[in-house]
Formats: sequence, C-alpha cells, structure tokens
Amino acid sequence: MAKIAFIGLGNMGAPMASNLLKAGHELVVFDLVPEARQKLADAGAFAADSAAEAVENATVVISMLQTGKQVRDLYIGSGQVLTSASAGTLLIDCSTIAAEDARAVAQAALALDLPFLDAPVSGGVAGATAATLTFIVGGEAEPLETARPILESMGRSVLHAGGHGAGQLGKMCNNMLLGVLMIGTCEALNLAVAHGLDPAVVSEIMKSSSGNNWVLQVYNPFPGVMANAPAARGYEGGFLGDLMAKDLMLAMNAALASGTSTPLGSMARSLYTMHCANGNGGRDFSSIILFLQGGRLD
Amino acid sequence: MAKIAFIGLGNMGAPMASNLLKAGHELVVFDLVPEARQKLADAGAFAADSAAEAVENATVVISMLQTGKQVRDLYIGSGQVLTSASAGTLLIDCSTIAAEDARAVAQAALALDLPFLDAPVSGGVAGATAATLTFIVGGEAEPLETARPILESMGRSVLHAGGHGAGQLGKMCNNMLLGVLMIGTCEALNLAVAHGLDPAVVSEIMKSSSGNNWVLQVYNPFPGVMANAPAARGYEGGFLGDLMAKDLMLAMNAALASGTSTPLGSMARSLYTMHCANGNGGRDFSSIILFLQGGRLD
Amino acid sequence: MAKIAFIGLGNMGAPMASNLLKAGHELVVFDLVPEARQKLADAGAFAADSAAEAVENATVVISMLQTGKQVRDLYIGSGQVLTSASAGTLLIDCSTIAAEDARAVAQAALALDLPFLDAPVSGGVAGATAATLTFIVGGEAEPLETARPILESMGRSVLHAGGHGAGQLGKMCNNMLLGVLMIGTCEALNLAVAHGLDPAVVSEIMKSSSGNNWVLQVYNPFPGVMANAPAARGYEGGFLGDLMAKDLMLAMNAALASGTSTPLGSMARSLYTMHCANGNGGRDFSSIILFLQGGRLD
Amino acid sequence: MAKIAFIGLGNMGAPMASNLLKAGHELVVFDLVPEARQKLADAGAFAADSAAEAVENATVVISMLQTGKQVRDLYIGSGQVLTSASAGTLLIDCSTIAAEDARAVAQAALALDLPFLDAPVSGGVAGATAATLTFIVGGEAEPLETARPILESMGRSVLHAGGHGAGQLGKMCNNMLLGVLMIGTCEALNLAVAHGLDPAVVSEIMKSSSGNNWVLQVYNPFPGVMANAPAARGYEGGFLGDLMAKDLMLAMNAALASGTSTPLGSMARSLYTMHCANGNGGRDFSSIILFLQGGRLD
Repeated sequence: MAKIAFIGLGNMGAPMASNLLKAGHELVVFDLVPEARQKLADAGAFAADSAAEAVENATVVISMLQTGKQVRDLYIGSGQVLTSASAGTLLIDCSTIAAEDARAVAQAALALDLPFLDAPVSGGVAGATAATLTFIVGGEAEPLETARPILESMGRSVLHAGGHGAGQLGKMCNNMLLGVLMIGTCEALNLAVAHGLDPAVVSEIMKSSSGNNWVLQVYNPFPGVMANAPAARGYEGGFLGDLMAKDLMLAMNAALASGTSTPLGSMARSLYTMHCANGNGGRDFSSIILFLQGGRLD
Repeated sequence: MAKIAFIGLGNMGAPMASNLLKAGHELVVFDLVPEARQKLADAGAFAADSAAEAVENATVVISMLQTGKQVRDLYIGSGQVLTSASAGTLLIDCSTIAAEDARAVAQAALALDLPFLDAPVSGGVAGATAATLTFIVGGEAEPLETARPILESMGRSVLHAGGHGAGQLGKMCNNMLLGVLMIGTCEALNLAVAHGLDPAVVSEIMKSSSGNNWVLQVYNPFPGVMANAPAARGYEGGFLGDLMAKDLMLAMNAALASGTSTPLGSMARSLYTMHCANGNGGRDFSSIILFLQGGRLD
Repeated sequence: MAKIAFIGLGNMGAPMASNLLKAGHELVVFDLVPEARQKLADAGAFAADSAAEAVENATVVISMLQTGKQVRDLYIGSGQVLTSASAGTLLIDCSTIAAEDARAVAQAALALDLPFLDAPVSGGVAGATAATLTFIVGGEAEPLETARPILESMGRSVLHAGGHGAGQLGKMCNNMLLGVLMIGTCEALNLAVAHGLDPAVVSEIMKSSSGNNWVLQVYNPFPGVMANAPAARGYEGGFLGDLMAKDLMLAMNAALASGTSTPLGSMARSLYTMHCANGNGGRDFSSIILFLQGGRLD
Repeated sequence: MAKIAFIGLGNMGAPMASNLLKAGHELVVFDLVPEARQKLADAGAFAADSAAEAVENATVVISMLQTGKQVRDLYIGSGQVLTSASAGTLLIDCSTIAAEDARAVAQAALALDLPFLDAPVSGGVAGATAATLTFIVGGEAEPLETARPILESMGRSVLHAGGHGAGQLGKMCNNMLLGVLMIGTCEALNLAVAHGLDPAVVSEIMKSSSGNNWVLQVYNPFPGVMANAPAARGYEGGFLGDLMAKDLMLAMNAALASGTSTPLGSMARSLYTMHCANGNGGRDFSSIILFLQGGRLD
C-alpha cells in the first residue's frame, strides 16, 4: 500500500480520499478548510497543517482542486509541493483545468525528477462516492502503470489519452460532446412531444436507432421517462449546469487556441452560459430542456 | 403469404421488393422506369403497367418514393391507388416525407376503408439489401400487427411511434439527432487531433464515457479509425449528405410548424446545406468532418 | 379620390384606414369584430356587413390580416372578395404572410382580371398611426403606380421589390436581417459592458465605425443609452417579440423551401422562439438583450 | 512637430509612418526587416538599428505589430523599449491584441512614468494609406489629448473608449458585430436571390428600412451590386478573412473570460475559421457570401 498525500477535500476530493482509506492506503490530507481536514482525520487519515507538510514523506501526491490557478499555486507557487516532495514522488492532479496549466506544472515537476500525471475524472459526486469514476490520464505510460491500482481504488476505469495535458484535452472533448448530445437529445424530444408523440416511446425508438447516445441510455432529460434520472427529481443534484458551462469554456479556449471550428460546441457553450446566468447553474445539466422549452425553474 | 403490390423500385425499393420475393410473397410491381420493373420481373415478380393495375388484386400495397408530392399523387392523384384498391387492402408507405403529407393520405384512405401506415425506414441501401432495416411506424395498432411479418421480411425491427404521421415524426426526430451527433462527434475529434491526440484513442475514451453515441460505435468519421466506416473508403456510399440535408429540412419544417426551438438542429441543417451545395451531397454524410476542417473533397 | 374597401381593422388596420379617411378617400370598411367596424364608421367610413358587400363598388381593396390562411379565405374562400369585386378593381394585401400564399391569391385574382399587389409594411403601430409606414411591394409596375398615392396616404415610402410575392420576400429578408442586427448588437454591448466599458460610449464608437446599423441608430437595446427607445421604458410597446418570431419563422420557411443556408437567421429564430416561450412575446423585441444576459423580465 | 519613433513597418505600419512624415514629423523607424526600414529611410525617416535605439530620443513611440506576444516582447522583453525610453515619453500601441496584453504593458509602462495608450485602428490598408483610419483608444484622457493631433495625421477619427485595454475591447466588440453584420447581410441577400429577387433592389430596400447597416452602405458582398466593393473585383484586397478570424478569436477569448453569451458571434467565428481553413483567408472577408452559397473560390 502506498503512502499518499491527498490535497483538496471538497465535494469530489473528500469521498475520493475516503475510498483510498477504505482500500487500505496510508493517507495524509490537507485542505484550506479545517473542518474538511478533520472529517478525514476522523476517518483515519493524518491531517497535515500545510500542503508542504502533507507531501513531505509521501510516495504519491493526489490533488483535486477547482481552477488552473489553484493547481499552479499548489505545485509551483505558495503551496510548495514541488520543492517539498522527495525526488521520485508520483504527482497526480485530478482537477479539471486547461491543458496548458497541466503542461506547465508537468514541466516544472519533471525538471525536479517528479513524474506528473493529469488525471481529470468523470462521474461526478456519485461516482466519487461509489468509487466508479473514470480517469482520463495524460502523461508517460510508466508512472501511469504505477498510478493505476491507486486510481482503481477510486474509480472503475483508467484511460490513457496521451502525453502531458492529453488527459485534460480528452476530458474536455468528451464533455463538449456530452453537452452537444444533451442539447440535441432535448431538441429531438421536444420536437416529438410538440407533435403529440410520447417521449418514452420516441426515446426507445431513437435508442434502438442511429440517434442512440449516452443521454438516452442513462440520463433522459424528459420528466417521467426515466425513474432514476435527475429529470425525475426536479433536476436536483447530478452534474451541475455550472460544471458543464466550465467544461465548455475550457473546450472553447482550446478550440480558439488551435483554430478549430466548433459550431455546435460554441452554441452549447452559449446556451449553457445563458441557462446558468438565469439562475440554474446549481441544477443538473439536463435541466437545459426546460430552457429550450422556454420554461422556468422556480 | 400475402399478395403484395410494390410501387417504387429505386435504390431502396428494388432490394426491399427482392427480399419480399425471397420470403415467398406473391409480388406485383410498378415503377415509372421500365428497366426497374423488368429487373424485378426477371426475379419472379409480376410487372404491372400502372400503379392502378398493380394494386387491383393486392391485399397489401407498399410504396417507396422520394417526395410527399409523389406520394400524394400516387395514392390520391393520378396514380389512382386509393380508388383502385379493394376495400380492406392494407396500405404501407415507406417513403420519408412530411408528417402532414402522410396524414393527408391516411385520412383519404380511411375514408375509403383502407387502413394506412406511414413506415419510413432507417438503414440505407445496405440495410435494404441485407433485410436489416428499421421501420418507424405511424398508424393504428391492428394494421401494424398485420404488417409486422411482412415488414420483418425486409428489416430487423418494427417500432410503433404512434398515430398517423408519427412514423415520419419519429424518423425525422431521430435523424435530426443523428445529424447533431455526427457534427458534434466530428468537432470533438477535430479538437482532440488539433491538440495532438490520437483520434482512435480519443474515440475509445469518449465511447467508454458520457460522449458515447451511435457515430462513435459504428460510424467513426475520422479516416483511419474504423475499417468498415465510409471514412475508410473516401466517404463513398453510405448515407448520402443529400439525404441527411433532406431529413433535416423535414425536421426544421416540423420545428417551425410547432414553434419548437432547435438551435443545434438548425445549425446542423445549415452546415449540411452548405456542404451539399459545395458538391458533396453524393458523399456519405460523415464527410462533414472535412467541411469542418476546411478541407476539400476533390 | 378613390373608393376604397378596407378589410381588417386591428391594431394596424384601424389607424391605416383612419389615415385614408383623413386623406379624403371614400372608405367602406369591414372587420369580423363589430366594434372595430363601428369605430371607423364613427370617423366617417361606411361599415359593410361582409367583405363581399364592402368590395362590391370599390375601385381599390386593401386588406390587413394576420395569417396566410386568413388572406386566402378572404380573397378565394368564404370572404368571396375575388368573385364580388368588379373587373379591374385593384387589390392590395398589406398582411405579412408567406410569399406562396401571396402568389396563390395573385394568380387567382389575375385569372379574373383583378390586379393584385402584396404590400407588407414595416413601421409598426406607431408608423401606422403617424402615416410613416414603409410598404415593400410585389407585383406589376402599372398597378403599383396606381396604388402609390393611396399607399403614400398611409406611409412615407413605397418600395418595389419585384413580381408577385416579392414584397413578402423583401420584408422577410429585411426582418431576418433586423433580428440578426439586434442580437449581434446586444452581444457586442453585453461583451463591452462585461469588461467595464460604458454602453453609451461603445455604442457611439460602433455607430461611427463599421458596426454601424439601424439598431444602434434608433433602437439601442441597452437601458439608459437612448431616451426614446423601448429599452428606456422597460421594453413596453414597440415591435413585439412575437412578431419578430413570426417573421423569422416565415423567413426560415422560405430558406428551407429554397435550400438557402442561414446559420445566423436560424439561430435568431431559435433564440426569439425561446425568449417568447418564456413569456416575453408581448414585449419589444429589443428585450432579447436580457435573455442573452440570463436576466428575467418579471 | 513631435519626434516620433515608429516600430513595425508592415502593410499597415509603413503607410502610417509615411503619413507622419508627410505631416512634417521627425521620424525614427525600426522593423526587423531591413528592406522595410530602408523604404522609410528613402522617404526621409531615420532608420535605427534596434527598437531600443529608435526610442532613445523620441518624445512619442508608436508601434504596429501582429500579436500580443510581439507587443509584450517589444516593450517589456527583448525590445527594451520601456527601459530605453526617457521618462514622460508617450507610448502608443496601434496593434490589435488582447486587452489583457495591452493592460500588462500599460501597467509596466506606468510604473516607469511612461504614459501608454492602446489605440487599435479600423480602416485597413486603404485607410492607412489615405490617412482615414479610425483609432479606438484606451487609456487616460490627458495623454490621449497629446496623442490626438499625431493620430489625426494618420486617420480621420479618434475615439476614446475608456481606460487601459478599452481600445482593444472597443475594437473587438465592433469587429465582432461587423462579422455578424456581414454574414447576416449575406444570408438575407442569398435568400432574396434564391427566390428570384434582384440583389441590388433588395439591398436598396433593406438599406432604407430597419436592415440598414454598414455592410449595405459601403461594402455590399453580392457581386455586381456595388462598383467599388471587393465583390466587384473577385474579393481581392480589402479586409482579409484571416484578420476577421483573428478579431473574432480575440472577441471570443474576451467572451469566455467574462462569461458573456455570444451565440451569433461564436457562429461567425466558426464560419470564418472554416472559410479561412478552406484557403480563403487571403481574400476579402465579404467572400464569406460564396462560402454560405456553397460556392468555391478557385
């Protein structure tokens, strides 16, 4: 079992760290919020007073933060992780950030002989809790093989996307596509229902035809069609609109930087931005169906 | 075995009629093109000299035409099918047309005690040849059950979408969604490749994540990823861009008529219209990936 | 002065008819609503009991209705205008409808030696009241010259767009462009303000640069920039969102019929449809700026 | 007359510098390309061997470069302008770059008591040659008044957009709107022509109605309508598609950074990116009309 430092104990980080404990790993944790540290300490982790202290004797460091700036600060800046970790320590950042931020940290880490992986996840809080996350990983193959059993304590699948930053790119491409699948599926369902078709019937038809996609399979946005989908509980919980808007923003930044045309991705980004600005960022992203209908979520 | 009149022996109709013959049905055929009639006659069908003659003694009539106007003409207008068919004859139109055209013919047929089904197909020429089509059917349940074994001689699945016109609506909703899935998948692949990722690797990642959809499963548009997809043979054959543009046009007409917002469907329609106007309507619809890249198909 | 029959005395028709009276024309009016007829009778018009009666002795017939179906019914159907009018009577329809509806009525009229013009207007209720409307006219040049002085009693300019239906086409092209100008201007203002610029300053800059357009000149959508714009009075009155949505729907139908690519026009139509479905169809169309901001109009 | 250092003598910079000479200013010039320096020297300027040397004794520095990175390098980095200029020297950057790049240079300059203005231009090579440019300026009012007569030697109008970076923001908002005006106007013209209207007639109608905008006034994209527009000469010269794509990219970056919804601006950016990727970046930006028609520019 590895000696792991885990930094960032928010909605995602806390259950991920718990699953590492359950798997028997020795865990040192840090978060800027003392209560978050205490919760993990109560569960058996050692709570450090700083990120630097947390990583000092670790063989693996895992971080789960919100923004690229936070990640840069943690590793390169005031967090002092790079200068506090012993040579050879494996660094794994699970945050969803821009690929260029991931690459900048990777370069700085490699210069100090610290292998680094960008390993953003999909699966949300539910997946983090149930240890069914998917990790999309960028970096070298060798450290990835070292990381694999540890990541598998927190998730179901570990996919290698390519070199440094490729994990971030792979995730943002997937999530841009997901945003398009969701809106496209909503449009098709709204059109069918507007012409008197039953949303459950047309969902089945499209699922068994060429319109088949993940949204129809496990996340039908039309209320009443799928018992366990967020649509069945007023779009509470699930994958928040704000997070979809963030992922689309990252994807659009990457599209601008590379001169890639993304007409549907751009439209998805504008629609989610409007939907969230209208006060719906805290609801599941499938609530966009009501926005397309002109409906309100009060 | 039924006595079937089959009218419209084009790229789709001819193999469909052949499969009815193979299944042992007695077949009378008609097409405006004598050579098309002769081909089926050579295979064992009886070739009639007019649509009216073809349907006279049939218990089932199946039509496969190009436009709503042709279908109206065949049944209500100069084709005289409604006035030539005996009461009780089951009429099945497999053309892809506007729902209102299907409903107009259905109403006229019902007034003469002729049960009518709109039963557009998906699966293309390949599906028509291999008898693996999907039929999306609108109309009453009882005639549908009569039709089912006959349709199953030509296809793999028969889906009941609802009342008259619902088959057309179901198909156009599905195909509008398919257009969106295709373009969205192209954008995600182009973005990934522009940042140095391997298209096959990122395809696998999205297929095993929430970006999973029919296009990634069986129709990858990126050359070199999937051996049997149209992308592997220069986008020859397959489901033509012109047909996708037609289906999107039908879907947009339905969206306008019902006041449904379809931002991504509208965009897909504009993009396919431009792509086809650029001389690519005779290529597989996955060739839109080159249009998005700015590339040309010369 | 001409003897004019005026049919359709709604928000637009009533002030238009009043202006004809003021100009000294002899006026017979009809509307399905008795109160609407009475109002014009009080002002000096003769109120007929049916459209047919109204047109019997007229030398010019003017109609102002809501939909293409109403116009067809009036002229060809139960309204019996074509069969009640004397040969040579000049027919002018000022409704905004599909070009094919206008052409169908024109054809039926010409077969009876009745010259017909499609002459939709822009300028709204304010323009109708102040006799400052713009007429965009389709039809032959000769009847247009006969009509010109009469139209100039109700408006400021009379523009000849082409043959039958061209008036409708010209208007819907203009209004599709207007919808795009409005949304584009809103986006530019929102972007500038989000980065701390003064909306009045950036409006002036764009007005004196290549961003100059009608919206910036007379209809600035940002509250506080222009004293007389609908934005200054909570988007009350003006050109209603519902009417813009209708015009965009007509334009999209024309685009589908001709296979024209209109990516921005399509997007404008989807955005206005959502905005109106959200309960804002009764507000001025410049209120779309709040929709883009995510704001609500309660 | 001021002693001016002018750095960056490309397509835009060279004629701008020439106009300063013509206005009687003393000019020191620098460009990385020796031939570009020589040309201005032949016209009466003094050619320096480095940017640092050029600015040493100047009271005003004007730069005209391509990218934000080049501007940062010139002022803060290896170009050593900030450290070579005497205190009080007025710095004016006319490049079109991101507002944050402009602000970064401004901050560094102010720290050394060097007033800085961001002053991007519109008007293109033709405007630079004819001294009819528009300057959209960000920075303090006092240095702007010092700069005004100098800028007026090169252009017709000088507009103050706000504080540091506001010039860049103002220009990118204007040009995003221009991109939307152009595409929207193309769509309206294509739709009218597809239905048989004369493009010149419908242009006049929209120009005298609410569709009026800069594109219809001076830059009609339809061939044959306007004698002096790029459309009349095969879209040669004018404002290049690549530059519009660059400006839209800058605007989209600003929209992402501020969470502003820009559905039409995003679409314009995708369409121009595709058009340019198709080999048309070196043509005037009004050539997008052919892209929308599906036509090719060979």
